[in-house]
Amino acid sequence: MEKTKIGIIGKGNVGTHLFKALKEFIPCEIVDSRKIKDLDSEYDIAIICVKDDIIEEIATLLKGKAKMIVHTSGSVPMSALSGAAEAIGVFYPLQTFTKDIPLNYKEIPFFIEGNSQKTISVLKELAGEISNKVLEADSEKRKSLHLASVFACNFSNALVMMADEILQNEELDYKILLPLMKQTIKKLNQTDPLKAQTGPASRKDFSTISRHKEMLINNPEMQEIYQKFSNYIIEKTDYNNEFDKL
Amino acid sequence: MEKTKIGIIGKGNVGTHLFKALKEFIPCEIVDSRKIKDLDSEYDIAIICVKDDIIEEIATLLKGKAKMIVHTSGSVPMSALSGAAEAIGVFYPLQTFTKDIPLNYKEIPFFIEGNSQKTISVLKELAGEISNKVLEADSEKRKSLHLASVFACNFSNALVMMADEILQNEELDYKILLPLMKQTIKKLNQTDPLKAQTGPASRKDFSTISRHKEMLINNPEMQEIYQKFSNYIIEKTDYNNEFDKL
Repeated sequence: MEKTKIGIIGKGNVGTHLFKALKEFIPCEIVDSRKIKDLDSEYDIAIICVKDDIIEEIATLLKGKAKMIVHTSGSVPMSALSGAAEAIGVFYPLQTFTKDIPLNYKEIPFFIEGNSQKTISVLKELAGEISNKVLEADSEKRKSLHLASVFACNFSNALVMMADEILQNEELDYKILLPLMKQTIKKLNQTDPLKAQTGPASRKDFSTISRHKEMLINNPEMQEIYQKFSNYIIEKTDYNNEFDKL
Repeated sequence: MEKTKIGIIGKGNVGTHLFKALKEFIPCEIVDSRKIKDLDSEYDIAIICVKDDIIEEIATLLKGKAKMIVHTSGSVPMSALSGAAEAIGVFYPLQTFTKDIPLNYKEIPFFIEGNSQKTISVLKELAGEISNKVLEADSEKRKSLHLASVFACNFSNALVMMADEILQNEELDYKILLPLMKQTIKKLNQTDPLKAQTGPASRKDFSTISRHKEMLINNPEMQEIYQKFSNYIIEKTDYNNEFDKL
């Protein structure tokens, strides 16, 4: 693909990371999304890496400036790009991107969608340059993947924010929790989340649950989250209760 | 400590794991908590590994059968053992234990409490046999550590259960999310959870948030959890909003 010219549109987290990864293999430019009106280059592939809300708008502005236009969003359908170019598609990396935090791209699953077999194979080849795990997914599948990632990744991080709030009161560092979290993920390689579930709720240990809720008395938001999770776990782990007994 | 005789009381997840780890270094027995009435051995240290609710009851039954009695619970105060032996304490491993899932004990932080300096140093020595990270924590600190772990670990696992529910509808395997989760934890080694937060809520991407909520229309429990997390993230990430912009 060394003759393909790629434009990455958007200098946010995803754009910055994709640019770094792709430029090792393919001629690549990164463009501020606010400056595409003045753009005079033509790209073989334009990869839109902007907030979901403005993907359609940016695609319209790119009309005539790229032969193939794709976006990188989990939750926006491919059809948001309709009319912007003949070849349209989606190039969705299932990963959390933060500027300055390096990534092992080989491990990142890429989910591909395209409006023709040709587009799909170009995008698969492109993703294959940086990742070992390239899969196809239509807009419905991708939406579910994105939603699932928000739960598993974004909300897990938010849970650490909450844990950090609790520990800060005791002048403890949230990093003391990281071995525990690593083990939580490691377990999930070997056993499904239902069997891996531990903690007061899975043990139906109601006195600990109520002590914990009391500790959160001044933080009603976290108290409610605690209760909702406990209800969910109690309900789900009901039938394998015996695993966690004495 | 090779002359110390240890009794681990309770054959659940914690007991089973501690027994495996300690018996490498120290004479050790594991006892079913329902059978301690018939117990005729005397231990130097009895380590109670049972459900929080019955720790006090088990301690009372152990009276006269151990010189030192400790429990392994994050949320029960040391005082629950008062009167059961002269030397009492807490031996709290900050880890999630599941039978048959191996652990790297060296990495597990152990938090120690004791009713005398002598007890504390015996317990520190014992923990030091299996872990590199032995710390002191009084009952208050330990309660916070336990609560924080429930958020960071038990609830993260529950989030994967939820993600799994979403993916099962699309016949996708939750394991596709594990590289993402690994990266989420890895990021937290380098940057605090507030700065590491990504996702629709941190970007104030309200149209994605409402699309996601619509997808959860038949699952009001998960829909509510989605909303609560989004509110929390929106609120907390307010001031560093600019990091996640275009």
